[in-house]
Amino acid sequence: MNQIVQTERTRLRRLHERGSYHRATINAILDAGMLCHVGYVIDGSPYVTPTNYWREGERIFWHGSSASRMLRQQSAGTPVCLTVSHLDGLVLARSGFHHSVNYRAVMIFGRAEPISDPAAKTTHLKAFVDGLFPGRWDELRPMTEPELKATTILCMPIDEASAKVRTGPPIDDEEEYALPVWAGVLPLETHTGKPIPDPHLREGIAPPAYLDGFKLG
Amino acid sequence: MNQIVQTERTRLRRLHERGSYHRATINAILDAGMLCHVGYVIDGSPYVTPTNYWREGERIFWHGSSASRMLRQQSAGTPVCLTVSHLDGLVLARSGFHHSVNYRAVMIFGRAEPISDPAAKTTHLKAFVDGLFPGRWDELRPMTEPELKATTILCMPIDEASAKVRTGPPIDDEEEYALPVWAGVLPLETHTGKPIPDPHLREGIAPPAYLDGFKLG
Repeated sequence: MNQIVQTERTRLRRLHERGSYHRATINAILDAGMLCHVGYVIDGSPYVTPTNYWREGERIFWHGSSASRMLRQQSAGTPVCLTVSHLDGLVLARSGFHHSVNYRAVMIFGRAEPISDPAAKTTHLKAFVDGLFPGRWDELRPMTEPELKATTILCMPIDEASAKVRTGPPIDDEEEYALPVWAGVLPLETHTGKPIPDPHLREGIAPPAYLDGFKLG
Repeated sequence: MNQIVQTERTRLRRLHERGSYHRATINAILDAGMLCHVGYVIDGSPYVTPTNYWREGERIFWHGSSASRMLRQQSAGTPVCLTVSHLDGLVLARSGFHHSVNYRAVMIFGRAEPISDPAAKTTHLKAFVDGLFPGRWDELRPMTEPELKATTILCMPIDEASAKVRTGPPIDDEEEYALPVWAGVLPLETHTGKPIPDPHLREGIAPPAYLDGFKLG
Protein backbone atom coordinates (compact mmCIF):
# COMPACT_ATOMS: atom_id res chain seq x y z
CA MET A 1 0.00 0.00 0.00
CA ASN A 2 1.24 3.48 -0.85
CA GLN A 3 2.55 4.80 2.46
CA ILE A 4 3.81 8.28 3.38
CA VAL A 5 7.07 8.65 5.27
CA GLN A 6 6.70 9.82 8.88
CA THR A 7 8.39 12.96 10.08
CA GLU A 8 8.90 14.49 13.50
CA ARG A 9 5.76 16.56 12.91
CA THR A 10 3.49 13.77 11.68
CA ARG A 11 4.59 10.94 13.98
CA LEU A 12 1.56 10.12 16.12
CA ARG A 13 2.60 10.15 19.72
CA ARG A 14 -0.65 9.12 21.38
CA LEU A 15 -3.12 6.39 20.43
CA HIS A 16 -0.90 5.65 17.45
CA GLU A 17 -2.98 2.55 16.71
CA ARG A 18 -5.59 5.01 15.45
CA GLY A 19 -3.10 6.54 13.05
CA SER A 20 -2.34 5.89 9.42
CA TYR A 21 0.14 7.05 6.83
CA HIS A 22 -1.58 5.30 3.92
CA ARG A 23 -2.36 7.50 0.97
CA ALA A 24 -5.64 5.68 0.33
CA THR A 25 -6.86 6.39 3.88
CA ILE A 26 -5.73 10.01 3.76
CA ASN A 27 -7.28 10.60 0.33
CA ALA A 28 -10.61 9.06 1.35
CA ILE A 29 -10.83 11.40 4.36
CA LEU A 30 -9.93 14.43 2.24
CA ASP A 31 -12.39 13.50 -0.50
CA ALA A 32 -15.24 13.20 2.00
CA GLY A 33 -15.02 16.89 2.90
CA MET A 34 -14.64 20.38 1.51
CA LEU A 35 -13.96 22.50 4.62
CA CYS A 36 -10.47 22.54 6.10
CA HIS A 37 -8.80 24.59 8.82
CA VAL A 38 -5.52 26.16 7.78
CA GLY A 39 -3.04 27.10 10.49
CA TYR A 40 -0.27 29.65 9.95
CA VAL A 41 1.83 31.99 12.02
CA ILE A 42 1.98 35.79 11.88
CA ASP A 43 4.37 37.56 14.29
CA GLY A 44 4.55 34.44 16.45
CA SER A 45 0.76 34.15 16.80
CA PRO A 46 -1.10 31.14 15.42
CA TYR A 47 -4.12 31.76 13.18
CA VAL A 48 -6.64 29.10 12.17
CA THR A 49 -8.82 30.01 9.20
CA PRO A 50 -11.63 27.82 7.91
CA THR A 51 -11.63 27.59 4.13
CA ASN A 52 -12.66 25.28 1.30
CA TYR A 53 -10.19 22.87 -0.27
CA TRP A 54 -10.02 20.26 -2.97
CA ARG A 55 -7.61 17.48 -3.86
CA GLU A 56 -6.00 16.80 -7.20
CA GLY A 57 -3.84 13.67 -7.14
CA GLU A 58 -1.16 14.08 -4.49
CA ARG A 59 -1.73 17.81 -4.00
CA ILE A 60 -4.22 19.75 -1.92
CA PHE A 61 -5.59 23.12 -3.11
CA TRP A 62 -7.31 26.06 -1.49
CA HIS A 63 -8.14 29.53 -2.73
CA GLY A 64 -9.61 32.91 -2.00
CA SER A 65 -9.30 36.58 -2.63
CA SER A 66 -5.88 37.86 -3.61
CA ALA A 67 -6.52 40.65 -1.07
CA SER A 68 -6.73 38.13 1.78
CA ARG A 69 -4.03 38.55 4.39
CA MET A 70 -4.14 34.82 5.09
CA LEU A 71 -3.42 33.94 1.47
CA ARG A 72 -0.77 36.59 1.03
CA GLN A 73 0.99 35.32 4.13
CA GLN A 74 0.79 31.73 2.97
CA SER A 75 1.86 32.58 -0.58
CA ALA A 76 5.11 33.84 0.87
CA GLY A 77 6.01 30.25 1.71
CA THR A 78 5.63 30.26 5.48
CA PRO A 79 4.90 26.88 7.12
CA VAL A 80 1.29 25.79 7.04
CA CYS A 81 -0.73 23.05 8.74
CA LEU A 82 -3.94 22.09 6.96
CA THR A 83 -6.37 19.95 8.95
CA VAL A 84 -9.54 18.23 7.77
CA SER A 85 -11.82 16.48 10.23
CA HIS A 86 -15.15 14.73 10.24
CA LEU A 87 -17.04 14.18 13.47
CA ASP A 88 -18.81 10.85 12.94
CA GLY A 89 -20.41 10.20 16.29
CA LEU A 90 -20.50 10.62 20.03
CA VAL A 91 -19.30 7.63 22.00
CA LEU A 92 -21.14 7.28 25.29
CA ALA A 93 -19.41 5.10 27.87
CA ARG A 94 -20.31 4.13 31.45
CA SER A 95 -17.82 6.60 32.96
CA GLY A 96 -17.08 10.17 31.99
CA PHE A 97 -13.47 9.21 31.46
CA HIS A 98 -14.20 6.71 28.68
CA HIS A 99 -16.53 8.97 26.72
CA SER A 100 -15.10 9.70 23.31
CA VAL A 101 -15.97 10.66 19.75
CA ASN A 102 -15.69 8.80 16.49
CA TYR A 103 -13.90 10.85 13.88
CA ARG A 104 -11.67 10.88 10.83
CA ALA A 105 -8.97 13.53 10.61
CA VAL A 106 -6.01 14.39 8.42
CA MET A 107 -3.18 16.82 9.13
CA ILE A 108 -0.94 18.00 6.30
CA PHE A 109 2.22 20.04 6.89
CA GLY A 110 4.16 21.97 4.31
CA ARG A 111 4.59 25.25 2.54
CA ALA A 112 2.02 26.53 0.09
CA GLU A 113 2.85 27.37 -3.51
CA PRO A 114 0.73 29.81 -5.50
CA ILE A 115 -0.58 28.91 -8.95
CA SER A 116 0.15 31.94 -11.07
CA ASP A 117 -0.57 31.02 -14.70
CA PRO A 118 -4.13 32.17 -15.57
CA ALA A 119 -4.85 29.09 -17.73
CA ALA A 120 -3.68 26.79 -14.95
CA LYS A 121 -5.83 28.71 -12.48
CA THR A 122 -8.89 28.11 -14.65
CA THR A 123 -8.11 24.40 -14.90
CA HIS A 124 -7.84 24.06 -11.12
CA LEU A 125 -11.01 26.05 -10.43
CA LYS A 126 -12.83 23.80 -12.91
CA ALA A 127 -11.51 20.76 -11.04
CA PHE A 128 -12.86 22.22 -7.78
CA VAL A 129 -16.35 23.03 -9.09
CA ASP A 130 -16.72 19.87 -11.20
CA GLY A 131 -15.45 17.80 -8.27
CA LEU A 132 -18.46 19.00 -6.31
CA PHE A 133 -20.96 19.20 -9.19
CA PRO A 134 -19.82 17.23 -12.24
CA GLY A 135 -20.33 19.23 -15.42
CA ARG A 136 -21.30 22.52 -13.77
CA TRP A 137 -18.20 24.47 -14.80
CA ASP A 138 -19.11 24.46 -18.49
CA GLU A 139 -22.61 25.78 -17.69
CA LEU A 140 -21.18 28.89 -16.01
CA ARG A 141 -20.24 32.24 -17.42
CA PRO A 142 -16.45 31.83 -17.92
CA MET A 143 -13.92 33.45 -15.57
CA THR A 144 -12.70 36.89 -16.69
CA GLU A 145 -9.09 38.04 -16.56
CA PRO A 146 -9.65 40.46 -13.63
CA GLU A 147 -11.45 37.69 -11.72
CA LEU A 148 -8.51 35.33 -12.25
CA LYS A 149 -6.18 38.07 -11.06
CA ALA A 150 -8.33 38.64 -7.98
CA THR A 151 -8.25 34.92 -7.12
CA THR A 152 -5.28 33.38 -5.37
CA ILE A 153 -4.95 29.61 -5.61
CA LEU A 154 -2.52 27.82 -3.34
CA CYS A 155 -1.45 24.20 -3.38
CA MET A 156 0.70 21.95 -1.26
CA PRO A 157 2.00 18.44 -1.84
CA ILE A 158 0.39 15.79 0.38
CA ASP A 159 3.83 14.56 1.44
CA GLU A 160 4.04 15.21 5.13
CA ALA A 161 0.66 14.00 6.33
CA SER A 162 -1.07 11.64 8.71
CA ALA A 163 -4.58 10.40 9.34
CA LYS A 164 -6.21 9.54 12.62
CA VAL A 165 -9.46 7.61 12.90
CA ARG A 166 -11.64 6.32 15.71
CA THR A 167 -14.58 4.04 15.03
CA GLY A 168 -16.72 1.65 17.00
CA PRO A 169 -18.32 1.32 20.43
CA PRO A 170 -17.06 2.65 23.79
CA ILE A 171 -14.19 0.85 25.50
CA ASP A 172 -15.07 0.64 29.18
CA ASP A 173 -13.23 -0.87 32.12
CA GLU A 174 -14.03 -4.59 32.06
CA GLU A 175 -15.93 -4.64 35.35
CA GLU A 176 -18.12 -1.72 34.29
CA TYR A 177 -19.88 -3.23 31.29
CA ALA A 178 -22.49 -4.51 33.75
CA LEU A 179 -23.41 -1.01 35.01
CA PRO A 180 -27.03 0.01 34.38
CA VAL A 181 -26.09 2.96 32.12
CA TRP A 182 -26.94 3.29 28.44
CA ALA A 183 -23.77 3.09 26.38
CA GLY A 184 -23.21 3.17 22.66
CA VAL A 185 -22.73 5.53 19.76
CA LEU A 186 -24.88 8.45 18.64
CA PRO A 187 -23.96 8.75 14.94
CA LEU A 188 -23.64 12.14 13.24
CA GLU A 189 -24.20 12.61 9.52
CA THR A 190 -24.11 15.55 7.13
CA HIS A 191 -27.25 15.76 5.01
CA THR A 192 -28.13 18.11 2.19
CA GLY A 193 -31.46 19.89 2.48
CA LYS A 194 -33.81 20.73 -0.37
CA PRO A 195 -32.10 23.15 -2.80
CA ILE A 196 -33.27 26.76 -2.30
CA PRO A 197 -33.56 28.49 -5.69
CA ASP A 198 -32.19 32.02 -5.90
CA PRO A 199 -35.15 34.45 -5.74
CA HIS A 200 -33.68 35.95 -8.95
CA LEU A 201 -33.63 32.58 -10.74
CA ARG A 202 -34.84 32.81 -14.32
CA GLU A 203 -38.12 30.97 -14.72
CA GLY A 204 -38.22 27.40 -15.92
CA ILE A 205 -34.80 26.26 -14.66
CA ALA A 206 -35.07 23.04 -12.67
CA PRO A 207 -32.47 22.06 -10.04
CA PRO A 208 -29.77 20.11 -11.89
CA ALA A 209 -29.39 16.37 -11.22
CA TYR A 210 -25.88 16.82 -9.82
CA LEU A 211 -27.40 18.44 -6.72
CA ASP A 212 -28.93 15.08 -5.81
CA GLY A 213 -25.59 13.38 -6.18
CA PHE A 214 -23.80 15.74 -3.80
CA LYS A 215 -22.57 14.10 -0.62
CA LEU A 216 -20.30 15.15 2.22
CA GLY A 217 -19.00 13.17 5.16
CA MET B 1 -25.60 44.70 23.03
CA ASN B 2 -22.58 43.20 24.76
CA GLN B 3 -19.74 43.80 22.32
CA ILE B 4 -16.13 42.59 22.44
CA VAL B 5 -13.31 45.04 21.83
CA GLN B 6 -11.47 44.58 18.53
CA THR B 7 -7.75 43.95 18.45
CA GLU B 8 -5.20 43.86 15.66
CA ARG B 9 -5.72 40.06 15.49
CA THR B 10 -9.51 40.04 15.44
CA ARG B 11 -10.17 43.07 13.23
CA LEU B 12 -11.85 41.71 10.11
CA ARG B 13 -10.01 43.02 7.12
CA ARG B 14 -12.11 41.57 4.34
CA LEU B 15 -15.89 41.40 3.97
CA HIS B 16 -16.13 43.05 7.35
CA GLU B 17 -19.89 43.46 6.86
CA ARG B 18 -20.01 39.72 7.55
CA GLY B 19 -18.24 40.15 10.86
CA SER B 20 -19.49 40.60 14.37
CA TYR B 21 -18.05 41.25 17.79
CA HIS B 22 -21.32 40.70 19.65
CA ARG B 23 -21.14 38.21 22.48
CA ALA B 24 -24.62 36.88 21.68
CA THR B 25 -23.64 36.07 18.08
CA ILE B 26 -20.34 34.50 19.14
CA ASN B 27 -21.97 32.44 21.89
CA ALA B 28 -24.72 31.15 19.60
CA ILE B 29 -22.12 29.92 17.09
CA LEU B 30 -20.06 28.27 19.82
CA ASP B 31 -23.10 26.64 21.41
CA ALA B 32 -24.17 25.13 18.07
CA GLY B 33 -21.01 22.99 17.89
CA MET B 34 -18.68 20.76 19.85
CA LEU B 35 -15.68 20.37 17.53
CA CYS B 36 -13.10 23.13 17.33
CA HIS B 37 -9.71 23.44 15.68
CA VAL B 38 -6.97 24.66 17.98
CA GLY B 39 -3.92 26.28 16.45
CA TYR B 40 -0.61 26.56 18.28
CA VAL B 41 3.06 26.89 17.42
CA ILE B 42 5.90 24.48 18.19
CA ASP B 43 9.40 25.44 17.02
CA GLY B 44 7.94 27.97 14.59
CA SER B 45 5.62 25.43 12.95
CA PRO B 46 1.84 25.83 13.14
CA TYR B 47 -0.22 22.85 14.31
CA VAL B 48 -4.00 22.59 14.00
CA THR B 49 -5.59 19.91 16.16
CA PRO B 50 -9.31 19.09 16.07
CA THR B 51 -10.73 18.64 19.55
CA ASN B 52 -13.98 18.98 21.48
CA TYR B 53 -14.83 22.11 23.39
CA TRP B 54 -17.55 23.53 25.55
CA ARG B 55 -18.48 27.01 26.74
CA GLU B 56 -19.17 28.13 30.29
CA GLY B 57 -20.17 31.79 30.48
CA GLU B 58 -17.41 33.91 28.98
CA ARG B 59 -14.83 31.12 28.90
CA ILE B 60 -14.17 28.33 26.43
CA PHE B 61 -12.91 24.91 27.61
CA TRP B 62 -11.20 21.95 25.99
CA HIS B 63 -9.55 18.86 27.41
CA GLY B 64 -7.68 15.68 26.76
CA SER B 65 -5.00 13.38 28.03
CA SER B 66 -2.37 14.91 30.27
CA ALA B 67 0.14 12.99 28.13
CA SER B 68 -0.88 14.94 25.03
CA ARG B 69 1.89 17.06 23.57
CA MET B 70 -0.68 19.54 22.30
CA LEU B 71 -2.13 20.11 25.77
CA ARG B 72 1.24 20.24 27.49
CA GLN B 73 2.38 22.84 24.98
CA GLN B 74 -0.78 24.89 25.43
CA SER B 75 -0.71 24.57 29.24
CA ALA B 76 2.62 26.35 29.15
CA GLY B 77 0.78 29.51 28.12
CA THR B 78 1.83 29.82 24.48
CA PRO B 79 -0.54 31.75 22.19
CA VAL B 80 -3.50 29.79 20.89
CA CYS B 81 -6.14 30.39 18.21
CA LEU B 82 -9.32 28.37 18.63
CA THR B 83 -11.66 28.30 15.65
CA VAL B 84 -15.19 26.91 15.41
CA SER B 85 -16.99 26.77 12.08
CA HIS B 86 -20.22 25.45 10.69
CA LEU B 87 -20.66 24.93 6.96
CA ASP B 88 -24.32 25.73 6.35
CA GLY B 89 -24.63 25.51 2.61
CA LEU B 90 -23.12 25.75 -0.84
CA VAL B 91 -23.95 28.91 -2.73
CA LEU B 92 -24.20 28.29 -6.47
CA ALA B 93 -23.91 31.40 -8.63
CA ARG B 94 -23.96 31.95 -12.40
CA SER B 95 -20.18 32.38 -12.58
CA GLY B 96 -17.44 30.42 -10.86
CA PHE B 97 -16.20 33.64 -9.32
CA HIS B 98 -19.40 34.31 -7.37
CA HIS B 99 -19.76 30.81 -5.97
CA SER B 100 -19.53 30.85 -2.22
CA VAL B 101 -20.53 29.02 0.95
CA ASN B 102 -22.83 29.93 3.79
CA TYR B 103 -21.12 29.51 7.13
CA ARG B 104 -20.84 30.66 10.71
CA ALA B 105 -17.36 30.86 12.23
CA VAL B 106 -15.72 32.14 15.40
CA MET B 107 -12.02 32.74 16.06
CA ILE B 108 -10.79 33.17 19.62
CA PHE B 109 -7.24 34.26 20.45
CA GLY B 110 -5.54 34.01 23.79
CA ARG B 111 -3.46 31.90 26.10
CA ALA B 112 -4.85 28.77 27.71
CA GLU B 113 -4.93 28.27 31.45
CA PRO B 114 -5.06 24.79 32.97
CA ILE B 115 -7.65 23.89 35.60
CA SER B 116 -5.70 22.10 38.29
CA ASP B 117 -8.01 21.60 41.28
CA PRO B 118 -9.56 18.09 41.07
CA ALA B 119 -12.97 19.23 42.38
CA ALA B 120 -13.05 22.06 39.82
CA LYS B 121 -12.05 19.59 37.10
CA THR B 122 -15.03 17.40 38.01
CA THR B 123 -17.39 20.38 37.92
CA HIS B 124 -16.20 21.39 34.45
CA LEU B 125 -16.39 17.85 33.05
CA LYS B 126 -19.94 17.60 34.39
CA ALA B 127 -20.78 20.87 32.63
CA PHE B 128 -19.39 19.42 29.37
CA VAL B 129 -21.30 16.11 29.55
CA ASP B 130 -24.54 17.60 30.89
CA GLY B 131 -24.33 20.35 28.27
CA LEU B 132 -24.56 17.64 25.62
CA PHE B 133 -26.85 15.22 27.48
CA PRO B 134 -28.67 16.89 30.40
CA GLY B 135 -28.55 14.71 33.51
CA ARG B 136 -26.14 12.08 32.16
CA TRP B 137 -23.23 12.92 34.46
CA ASP B 138 -25.02 11.68 37.58
CA GLU B 139 -25.83 8.35 35.88
CA LEU B 140 -22.14 7.64 35.29
CA ARG B 141 -19.60 5.90 37.44
CA PRO B 142 -17.83 8.88 39.11
CA MET B 143 -14.37 10.02 38.02
CA THR B 144 -11.49 8.50 39.99
CA GLU B 145 -8.50 10.42 41.26
CA PRO B 146 -6.06 8.88 38.74
CA GLU B 147 -8.51 9.67 35.93
CA LEU B 148 -8.70 13.29 37.03
CA LYS B 149 -4.91 13.40 37.13
CA ALA B 150 -4.72 11.92 33.64
CA THR B 151 -7.11 14.56 32.28
CA THR B 152 -5.92 18.04 31.39
CA ILE B 153 -8.58 20.72 31.15
CA LEU B 154 -7.71 24.04 29.58
CA CYS B 155 -9.76 27.21 29.41
CA MET B 156 -9.45 30.58 27.81
CA PRO B 157 -11.46 33.78 28.25
CA ILE B 158 -13.62 34.68 25.23
CA ASP B 159 -12.14 38.19 25.21
CA GLU B 160 -10.31 38.49 21.94
CA ALA B 161 -12.79 36.99 19.50
CA SER B 162 -14.75 37.63 16.34
CA ALA B 163 -17.51 35.96 14.40
CA LYS B 164 -18.01 35.84 10.65
CA VAL B 165 -21.24 34.76 9.02
CA ARG B 166 -22.53 34.44 5.48
CA THR B 167 -26.17 33.65 4.77
CA GLY B 168 -28.52 33.95 1.84
CA PRO B 169 -28.55 33.53 -1.92
CA PRO B 170 -25.72 34.11 -4.41
CA ILE B 171 -24.78 37.68 -5.33
CA ASP B 172 -24.22 37.74 -9.06
CA ASP B 173 -23.27 40.55 -11.40
CA GLU B 174 -26.49 42.40 -12.19
CA GLU B 175 -26.54 41.56 -15.89
CA GLU B 176 -26.04 37.85 -15.20
CA TYR B 177 -29.17 37.08 -13.24
CA ALA B 178 -30.82 36.38 -16.59
CA LEU B 179 -28.39 33.61 -17.53
CA PRO B 180 -29.98 30.16 -18.00
CA VAL B 181 -28.00 28.56 -15.15
CA TRP B 182 -29.49 27.14 -11.97
CA ALA B 183 -28.45 29.28 -9.00
CA GLY B 184 -29.32 29.06 -5.35
CA VAL B 185 -28.26 27.41 -2.12
CA LEU B 186 -27.75 23.74 -1.34
CA PRO B 187 -28.23 23.63 2.45
CA LEU B 188 -26.11 21.38 4.65
CA GLU B 189 -27.34 20.09 8.00
CA THR B 190 -25.93 17.84 10.69
CA HIS B 191 -28.32 15.06 11.66
CA THR B 192 -28.05 12.43 14.35
CA GLY B 193 -28.59 8.85 13.24
CA LYS B 194 -30.32 6.12 15.24
CA PRO B 195 -28.35 5.40 18.45
CA ILE B 196 -26.21 2.26 18.16
CA PRO B 197 -26.24 0.38 21.48
CA ASP B 198 -22.91 -0.96 22.67
CA PRO B 199 -22.81 -4.74 21.92
CA HIS B 200 -21.92 -5.14 25.62
CA LEU B 201 -24.95 -3.17 26.77
CA ARG B 202 -26.70 -4.75 29.74
CA GLU B 203 -30.13 -6.02 28.73
CA GLY B 204 -33.20 -3.92 29.27
CA ILE B 205 -31.62 -0.46 29.06
CA ALA B 206 -33.48 1.77 26.62
CA PRO B 207 -31.79 4.72 24.89
CA PRO B 208 -32.27 7.73 27.20
CA ALA B 209 -34.58 10.55 26.12
CA TYR B 210 -31.72 13.07 26.07
CA LEU B 211 -30.37 11.37 22.94
CA ASP B 212 -33.44 12.58 21.04
CA GLY B 213 -32.85 16.10 22.24
CA PHE B 214 -29.27 16.23 20.99
CA LYS B 215 -28.68 18.72 18.19
CA LEU B 216 -25.62 20.15 16.48
CA GLY B 217 -25.34 22.85 13.86
